[in-house]
Formats: sequence, C-alpha cells, structure tokens
Amino acid sequence: MDEIKVIKIGGNVVDNPLLLEQFIHDFSTIDGPKVLVHGGGVMASQMQRQLGQQPVMIDGRRVTDTDTLKVVTMVYAGWCSKSIVALLQKHGCNAVGLCGSDADLIRATRRPPVSKTSPEDGSAVTIDYGYVGDVDPGMINAGFLHSLINAGITPVICAITHDGKGNLLNTNADTIASAIAVSLAKDQQPAGQDGSDGPGCEVSLIYCFEKNGVLYDKDDDSSVIPEITPGYYRLLKHEGRVAAGMIPKLDNAFSALENGVRQVVIKHSGNLCNGTGTVLTIRES
Amino acid sequence: MDEIKVIKIGGNVVDNPLLLEQFIHDFSTIDGPKVLVHGGGVMASQMQRQLGQQPVMIDGRRVTDTDTLKVVTMVYAGWCSKSIVALLQKHGCNAVGLCGSDADLIRATRRPPVSKTSPEDGSAVTIDYGYVGDVDPGMINAGFLHSLINAGITPVICAITHDGKGNLLNTNADTIASAIAVSLAKDQQPAGQDGSDGPGCEVSLIYCFEKNGVLYDKDDDSSVIPEITPGYYRLLKHEGRVAAGMIPKLDNAFSALENGVRQVVIKHSGNLCNGTGTVLTIRES
Repeated sequence: MDEIKVIKIGGNVVDNPLLLEQFIHDFSTIDGPKVLVHGGGVMASQMQRQLGQQPVMIDGRRVTDTDTLKVVTMVYAGWCSKSIVALLQKHGCNAVGLCGSDADLIRATRRPPVSKTSPEDGSAVTIDYGYVGDVDPGMINAGFLHSLINAGITPVICAITHDGKGNLLNTNADTIASAIAVSLAKDQQPAGQDGSDGPGCEVSLIYCFEKNGVLYDKDDDSSVIPEITPGYYRLLKHEGRVAAGMIPKLDNAFSALENGVRQVVIKHSGNLCNGTGTVLTIRES
Repeated sequence: MDEIKVIKIGGNVVDNPLLLEQFIHDFSTIDGPKVLVHGGGVMASQMQRQLGQQPVMIDGRRVTDTDTLKVVTMVYAGWCSKSIVALLQKHGCNAVGLCGSDADLIRATRRPPVSKTSPEDGSAVTIDYGYVGDVDPGMINAGFLHSLINAGITPVICAITHDGKGNLLNTNADTIASAIAVSLAKDQQPAGQDGSDGPGCEVSLIYCFEKNGVLYDKDDDSSVIPEITPGYYRLLKHEGRVAAGMIPKLDNAFSALENGVRQVVIKHSGNLCNGTGTVLTIRES
C-alpha cells in the first residue's frame, strides 16, 4: 500500500475562503491515501464574540466551558468540517468529515484542573480548562480510518474528541494529527482473506501553517531550517531560537517520529505540493 | 439480513436534553440495523436570534441566506449530530454523524425562486428560499450506508445536503428520512465474494414527533388513527381532518411506501419501543 499522508491545516487556512479553496484544490491533486486534520480557532473566537462570549486562552489553549464547547463543536465539526468536505467533493475527492465521537474514533480524558504559579505575584493558582480533553493514545480507532481509506474515502478530522461517557471534549488539533499518524502507522491493516494480518503501513505527517517552515530567525521568513534532529532541537531551544508557540508543535512532531511515523514536515499551507519546508527526523547525524 | 429501521426525530427531541437522553437510550436498545435522521430547527432559530438574525419561515421551510446556512450547518451537522453520536457511544451504540456532503451521501438541487400569489392582495410574488435544496432521489449513496451498517455502525444523518459544486444546502429532514429509506430498500447490498449481487433488503420508516400519532381530532390526543390507507388519506384531507403541517409528512410517507419501503409508522418520540402510533400502508382494504 502507498504511504498515508496525514496533513494538518490550521485556522489561517480554514478561516480564509480563498486560501481554503486553493488548499483544497492542491490537496485533491495529491495521489495516494491521505487524511486531513483541521483547526478553526479563529472562526471559533469570532463566533464566541458574536454570541457575547469572551474567548479565554491560557498557554495557547482555549478555556472551554459549556457555552464554549457548543461553539467549538458547531464551528469545527459543523461549518468547517462540512464546508471542507463539500469543497473536496467539488474537486473529485471523496471525503467524510469526522470528530472523535464518530465511530469512537478518538477518546480523550478531560484534563483535571492544574496548579500553576502566578507570574504576577508568585501565588498558587488553579486553572480549570473545562471541557478540554487529552487524547488517550491507545483509544484511536485506526481500523475505521483504514477501512475508509481502503474504500477510497479521505477522512477529514476535526479537533473534537469524546470521553465515552457522552461528553464531547475540545482537543488540540496538532496533537490529534500526531496521534492519528502514530495510530495509522502502528495499526495493522485489515486481515487478508486467509485470516493473516496485513502489513503495517508507512505514514508521513505534514503540518501546514502560515510560515515556510521552522525559522532560525522568527523575523526573517527566508531563514527556514531545512532539517531538525532531536539534538539540534535541544540546541535551538537552549538558544531560545524556537518561538514559544512552535514548541508544542515540534514536541508533537518528535513524539510522532519516536512512535513509528516515517517523516514529519512543517511547511506553508500554500506550498503543499511544492516547497520543502522543514523536515524533522530522528536520524542523528 | 434483518430489516433496516430508519427513524426520524424532530426538533422537540433534539432540542431537549432530557427527552434526547431518554430517546437515545431507547434507540440504543433496538436490535438490528438502524439509521437515525434528525432535525434541530428549534435550536437553529434560537441560535439565529442570538446572532441577531431573524428566522424567516415560508410554508414551514426556512429561508436560507448565507448567514442562515452557516447557522443551520453549525447546529445540525455540528452540535446536534455530534452530541447525539457521543450519547449513542455512551449507550454502547457505535455511530457516525453524517451530512449529505460526507461520502457524497445526498446530492440536492438548489430550489429555484418560485412565484406565488400573495394571500393579502392577490398580486404575484417571487419567493427565493436561498440555499434550500431538494433531494435528487437517484443521487443517494446507499452503498456507503450499507457498508457502515454491515460494519455494525449506525449512521446518524442530518438535513444538510450538497450540490456537488461545493455548496451545502438546507433540506427538509422528513424528506431526507423518506429518501434514505427508499434508497436503502432499492439499493442492492454489496456483492458477495463470488461477485453476485446480494439480495435487496426490507426497510421500515418511523417518524417520531410530539404526538401519539396522526390525530382524527387535532385537539384530542387520544384520537390517534390506527391505520391510514391512500384512500382514507384522500378522505381525511377532503374533510380537512389532517393538520396543514402533517400533510408534507404524510406525503413523504406515502411516497416512501410507493417506492419500496415496507411500512411507515408515525408515533410519539417517547414511545419508540412501545405504543403503536399510526401505521401507514398502501394496502387498500
């Protein structure tokens, strides 16, 4: 079987009709099996404000009370997911929009309140993220994704998970993309007609965002680092070269590589079919 | 194969957490293959008002401009669909929430503007329903539904369709339920391993709503009509016994019967597993 490409796009594409149409066109031209994971955070924040809610973000994660959960589910699993799928169908790419409760695809555990030290006065504060879920890595239904892919259908996955107890949970889309890629790489393909297990499959993970790759100088768009190994990543972090917002993405990427994903690439969403971006590898040179 | 039950619930259930939980519990206990079709119109109207939009309904159909399309897609395909699926998973019923663009499930044609005579002054008026779609009966991917059902997965379908050109369309959920039931009855099951076509399958259609059935006297909840044939239906309409809002539902029901569905039942959503409701049949007695 061909390598499966797991491609993640963020809010800068999903929330911009022109960029989205171009991206979907490019995505549709990719040969071979593929999975799309998408965010939609910018639109969710806009919708929250239109409804009189004030988005609250802590360390880049959205504090998700009951009203917020409704908005993110409506935006990610409703408008973003189904608009993307309708566009894919227009471009001849058969697709299905899914969230974590569909086919029990992704289970997560609601994050317990965490204690942090206030940066202002050093006092202890407790942060409750609400209906935010952390993916249970062993609880991904990769078999269902393989069956869709084998039927020529592209899964489109948003960042809503569930706990198996009837609750939906808001989950980071980068983490979802990494967890999906790992589970697809690990999961055996459906058994052959003789009852034997099929072979495992190769998976690559591509994070598309608004830069051309990981930048050595965050103010210089031409300073794309071509390749990052774990050792080089440690050095870049030590030197403060990696922007704070990039660290969780790179942590997810290296986690995927250590768990069976062949390659991770970070690149501009407009360069899906060309441009090299930054290649992450666990090969130490 | 067991008969497939296509069960439709309306806004009175979807929009009420207590009724929904009870209904999902009952639905989960039904043995055999099943499909759930749901509305969500009450919640869509609430969301429109919260966003400063004024819902416009003509002859029971929602006029759907761009902003309205976004709201109904968010509410039906997002919050309603994924909440229902999460509840089904809680009750041990594996399910997937779908709209018409998923797997090219239901194509529709945007309704052209229609000319009507104003009831006020008799003048001609043109009504443009906007992004409202009428189902193309031959363009339903029943094969995908059969493959899910054969894998033990219950399809949960909302009333958003697509036109194949990238546009989502708002469609009547009663009509969707009827069209899905007809297509499942007509479509051959997947071919056997020897390449032969499988047998067709029997399908029944159950419309759940807020009454115990079709009432002979709309003000008397105990006046449920046990059985309606086409001839009796003509008589009831002639006598003005059938409420205006019930006529499209009954038209959909008889259309389903004339196109291969074995039986249609109209009953209270709280009586899914008991209570008889009104049985529609094309057997003239």
